[in-house]
Parts: sequence; structure tokens; C-alpha cells
Amino acid sequence: MNNTIEPEFHFSDRALKLTSSAIREILKVTEKKEIISFAGGLPSPDGFPVEIMQEAFNKVLAENGRTALQYGTTEGYTPLRQWIVEEMNESGANINIDQVLVVSGSQQAIDLLGKIFINEGDKILVENPSYLGALQSFGLYQPNFVPVSTDDGGLIPEHITEQIAFNARFLYALPNFQNPTGRTLSLERRKTLVKIMGDLNIPIIEDDPYGELRYTGNKQPSLLSLSKENNSTVIRLGTFSKILAPGLRLGYVIAPTPIIRKLVQAKQATDLHTPMLTQMAVYEVIKNGFLKTHLPKIREIYRTQGQCMLKAIKDEFPKDVKWTKPEGGMFLWITLPKHLDSSLLLNKAIKRNIAFVTGKPFFIAPTPEENCTMRLSFATVPEDKIIEGISSLGQLIKENL
Amino acid sequence: MNNTIEPEFHFSDRALKLTSSAIREILKVTEKKEIISFAGGLPSPDGFPVEIMQEAFNKVLAENGRTALQYGTTEGYTPLRQWIVEEMNESGANINIDQVLVVSGSQQAIDLLGKIFINEGDKILVENPSYLGALQSFGLYQPNFVPVSTDDGGLIPEHITEQIAFNARFLYALPNFQNPTGRTLSLERRKTLVKIMGDLNIPIIEDDPYGELRYTGNKQPSLLSLSKENNSTVIRLGTFSKILAPGLRLGYVIAPTPIIRKLVQAKQATDLHTPMLTQMAVYEVIKNGFLKTHLPKIREIYRTQGQCMLKAIKDEFPKDVKWTKPEGGMFLWITLPKHLDSSLLLNKAIKRNIAFVTGKPFFIAPTPEENCTMRLSFATVPEDKIIEGISSLGQLIKENL
Repeated sequence: MNNTIEPEFHFSDRALKLTSSAIREILKVTEKKEIISFAGGLPSPDGFPVEIMQEAFNKVLAENGRTALQYGTTEGYTPLRQWIVEEMNESGANINIDQVLVVSGSQQAIDLLGKIFINEGDKILVENPSYLGALQSFGLYQPNFVPVSTDDGGLIPEHITEQIAFNARFLYALPNFQNPTGRTLSLERRKTLVKIMGDLNIPIIEDDPYGELRYTGNKQPSLLSLSKENNSTVIRLGTFSKILAPGLRLGYVIAPTPIIRKLVQAKQATDLHTPMLTQMAVYEVIKNGFLKTHLPKIREIYRTQGQCMLKAIKDEFPKDVKWTKPEGGMFLWITLPKHLDSSLLLNKAIKRNIAFVTGKPFFIAPTPEENCTMRLSFATVPEDKIIEGISSLGQLIKENL
Repeated sequence: MNNTIEPEFHFSDRALKLTSSAIREILKVTEKKEIISFAGGLPSPDGFPVEIMQEAFNKVLAENGRTALQYGTTEGYTPLRQWIVEEMNESGANINIDQVLVVSGSQQAIDLLGKIFINEGDKILVENPSYLGALQSFGLYQPNFVPVSTDDGGLIPEHITEQIAFNARFLYALPNFQNPTGRTLSLERRKTLVKIMGDLNIPIIEDDPYGELRYTGNKQPSLLSLSKENNSTVIRLGTFSKILAPGLRLGYVIAPTPIIRKLVQAKQATDLHTPMLTQMAVYEVIKNGFLKTHLPKIREIYRTQGQCMLKAIKDEFPKDVKWTKPEGGMFLWITLPKHLDSSLLLNKAIKRNIAFVTGKPFFIAPTPEENCTMRLSFATVPEDKIIEGISSLGQLIKENL
């Protein structure tokens, strides 16, 4: 028995708006072993190069332990930043090292961008639906979220009119295998988007955690590389979470130097710097072309499981259900017939040991589909379990039609 | 030649206030090898247990690589949190694991506390002078800083009257070997402070990065342990930066669970979690009492260098100069005669290859001494260089009296 009265604490307005995310709550349920979970956003640990990472940490600590364990510069480890410059420029960008800041995962980049750009009430443009972690992170700075509508081809650039975008601080977009929908912007839409945003003089935040996980179709140029041709500003977020391992918490921002300078100051006040040891170890792993042999292996894991899920859905789901056909990444987006509520379906699914994430939390503005959508991840589920889980889910949908 | 016109960016009000800190600028100067720098805030790398860390990272990656490299919970690695609970309770606190959040260095704790407590214009109480990194971090949330005056015994609790403290969100204090002054609160002041703040119902943030670096005098109880006796709220910040290595970026917050819950939500939106690999490796290092043999070694480094600096100052500085006599930590605080401006002295010192940090940036409100104070760190300078540097600095002061 605990009879002590807890004192009341006076939190800031932004803190009062914070709630534990619906997804986080579902993930607690899915920790049970018997659950087949399509809910998670975790990459497959089969793709983690554990032994190579072990060798790299070992080498860095043996050869440069004191540097790796000392405070480092906020900007990041210079050879790693230089590697990022070369990678980007090889794929069509034209940047220099002063445009690169190393961060503690893309999530930190999102937070820092919110910090330096958003005053309370400022307009920001986001795809509807969009990545929940970004909505939460930006939300702490209390912006006015303005939805950009989407279709099967992702966000619709032409919908960003001068009126809608007036005085917006930025557009936040995930052009490749978007979370939650798995959709990808076509080359044409990319060009139009960069042009429109350049004309409006509004920066685009290009968040691209999944771009290297393309397992079919043609690679599209980054918005950053397309921005060279006109005067648009693209702030690109990259990460090692999906190509090496997410637990490293290692990502980067590419932006014009005045923005990087502000981000550096904000990061200094936020966590001083990202650990040198991690940066040096990752550089050790990737410096001699390791990713050229490693990425095809990861893509194969995702391709196999993604294709397996697509086939299972085609075989098992009733005709009136629609789904996206992603060319990479980790997620599929399901649209049920309108009268089916995906949150009610989830309750029933969990009783049959299947979990997924409902679509609603990803929407920042009401849409006709918000209650009948769901996100499925195939990243961490083996093929036999995908087939079993999708079959069971298909059966459940049919029972509730 | 670069003739492109940079676009103008519209930053948030808080970002416009961000400037590169004066200290950061000095640190750039001190990178030159010929400089004897008393300016830095870096711990001595002689105290980093590099080989032990190497073994630990190796073991964790070999035995639990997939877990260490996967996403982890925001709260932190359970065995590490449990270790923190036991450490705290052994030294007189009475906490449980739900009161512990692992963070990416104490700096992140400071940022998260600003995030969840400060609305623009809210009053917060800080020692005058105080740790610059905290002033910058809280400053991003645009509070109204209210100075608490200090003397040679640190902050003066009796000065925190009901009127001064009315509606303040918290008091931020460094009770042990304070940065920048090296001052420590007496047991009596600790008890008075905890009582006063409890009566006023205002939380104390107890930032204690240096507490384990005591090399003389008696250990004082933490404000956290004293808070048991009355109803006061103490939020304690701890770090592995000074007892293992700062580059790990590993710290923790201890607070009542409603505050921890808010901090967890804020951290999730900020960087998801602190790397599991680091947490697991550090736990591996400390779980069997390593610190009991390691801490005396570190204290001896700081004791030797600190005593060396104190003796050199006594021998070389003119009579009208005053200085603190810290019983631990990394810093000494010098007060020159009032007509001597420490920033003019710094310019001259750098020409003689000596660097230090002027006192002014640490003050949040004007005081008679703000222009004639300076902070000296002895943490990373070997004894012969301390003697040489202090002698040269003493000579310079005499020339400018």
C-alpha cells in the first residue's frame, strides 16, 4: 500500500500535449512470443553486420581509444562527414563538408529542425498521412500542421498552392517507400515538387531513411540532387539505422551552411555531440566499400519478405480491400472497405495473436479513409509467419465484411 | 569565387537567440599545440579505462550483438537502471527503477527538463554564476532567468525568498565543485535549501557531474537523499562522463515518476533512445564493482593537478587576487582586483600561449565581479605545464596591476 500523496507538477504547455503514442502501446502487446506482429517499425536484425561492427569497435578502441572516448566536435567526425559528401555527390548532389552535420539518429534531426524553425502557431506542411515520430517531434514546438493530400503516387505537388503554403516554414516529406504507406514519388512529381517549393521559397525536408532499401523498380534521384537545377532549398536527412543498425543512433543532416550553423548551435545545447566512438567505428566499417556488398544482402531480406506478404495478401484478402505495392522499405498500407473500422479489427486480431498498426494516428487531418486503414510491416517476420498471419487476418476481414 | 546569393532563412525566435558560445570560440584557439590551456572543460583522458571499455564492447557485441544494435526502450537498459537505483540507495536515497531514465549525457537531461517545464517567460532560478551549457540549453525555451546570489560557500539558500521564487518552475543547482567556481555547498546549506524549496513547492534540479571527483574533505549527502525528510522534489542528474569517459554520452535522471513519464515522452520525440550498445557495455564495465578501484585513480590525477595549481597560484599570483580552494572537480575560480578586466587579460595571455575562460559568460545577471573573474581548469594539464602556465599568468597579472 502506498498512501503518499504525489505532489502536482507544473509542466509546460508543450509537455501537457505529450501522450504515449498509440503505436508504442501496441508494441507492448506484441512483445508476447506467440504474437505474429506486423506492427513494429524495427529493421530486421538478420541485416545487422554484427561481427564487422565488433571488429570495428575493437579496432577503434585499440588504436584511438582516448580520442574515441573524449568529447568531440558538435559537427561530427570529419572523415565520416567527408564520406557522406562523396556518397551524396556520386549520386548527383553537389555539396561540401560544411553542409553536413552528424546527428544521433534522424529523429534528432527532426527535433533540431523543429527547434530552429518553428515558432508556436507557425505553419508547416506535411504529407497526410505521415511519419508519426515526426508529427510528435514537430508537435512539441506547437506548429499549425497543414496537410498535403496524397494518392497512390504519394504527395500531390500541385496541391501545394501559394495560398496553402503562404508563410509555411517548411514541407516535411518522405519521398521513398514512405512511412506509413510505402509509397514513392515518381520522377515527374519530384521535379514538380522541387520547382514549386523553390518558387514558393519554402525549404523541403527530405527524410529518406528507406531509400537504400529499394528491391525492385528504378532508383529515383533525391530531391536534394534535383534542387541543384533551381533555387530550391532541400534539407536532407539520412541515417545508418536501416543500412547498418538502428541501435547505433547515427544519422546526418545535409543543408545549406547557414542552416547547418544554426543546427550545430542547437545540437550543442541539446546533447553536445554524437559519440565519437560510434562515428569512428561506423566509418571504419564503411570506408572501403563495405556497403556495396552488404546492401544487396539486406535488400534481399526485405524483397523476399515483402514479396511474400504481397502474394499472401493477394491470395487471402477479399476483393474490396486495397493495398500499396511498395518497391522497397518496410511497410505496406491497407485500405479496407469504408464501413470496416481498423481499430475494431485490431482488437479482434490481437485475440488471434496478430498485431498491426491502425492508420489513424498517422493522419494530421481527417480523411474519408482514416478509420479504415492499417499499416503492415514485413521487416521482422519470417515467411512462414507472414503467410500464417496474413491468412488469419484475411479470414478475420472476411468475417467482418 | 562564389557568386551565388544565399537565400534568407526564417528561423524561429529561439534559434535567432542562439550564438556560438564564447568558450567554444576560445577552445578553437587552444587547439594549437604550443598553448597551455586552462580553458577546457574536458576530463583527463589519463582517467579513461580504454582497455576495459574495449573488452566490454567486444563482449557485448559477441554475446548480444543483435540486441545491442537494435532499437531499445526509451527508458533505458534495465540492468543499468537497476545498478543506478542500488548506487543511489546505498548513498542514502530511496528510489525505485521507475524513477530512473537513461539519457544521452546530462546535457540531454537539461534540454529535456527545459522542454517539459518551461513556457516562454516562465521564471527559473539559477545560481549566479552557473554552468554555461545549462544556461544555453534552458535559454532555448525562453525562460525568465532569476539569479540566486552566491558567496564562497556556493548559493545562499536564505536569499531564495517567497517573493523571488514566486511561481518559479525550478531551481537549477550544482552542489559539488560547481562549474565554473569549484564551490561546494555545506551540509547546513544543503539542509536549509531542501527545506526552503520544499516549503515553496519548487523542484530542485541537482546537477552533479563532479561529485565522485572529491579528492579532499568530507563527502556531503546529495540533495536527493536529504529530500526524503521533507516533501521537497529533487530531480538529480548523474553522468558517466567524468567517472568513465565523456565521449560515451551517457547520463541519467532521477525524479518522481510523473516527471520521468513526461521526460520519457519528450525523449522519445527527441532521439527515441540512448544506444543500447553503450548502455550494455558500460553496465558490463561497472557491474562488478570496477568503480571502487577505478575512482581512486581518477581522483588522484585531479588531486595532484589541482594541488599543483593551488600551490603555483599561491606562489605566483599577487596578493590582491582571490581564488577558490575546491575539494574536488576540475575548476578553480579567480577573482582579480576590480580594475583588471579578465577579457583584456585573456587577449594578452593568448599572445603568451596561455588560455583560460573569462567569468562573464557564466553570469546571468550583472555583479560587481563579472568583468574581473576567470575560470581555470587543471584537469588536462600536466604538472610542469601548470607551473609554467600559472607562473606566466601571474607575471602578466602583475604587469597589469
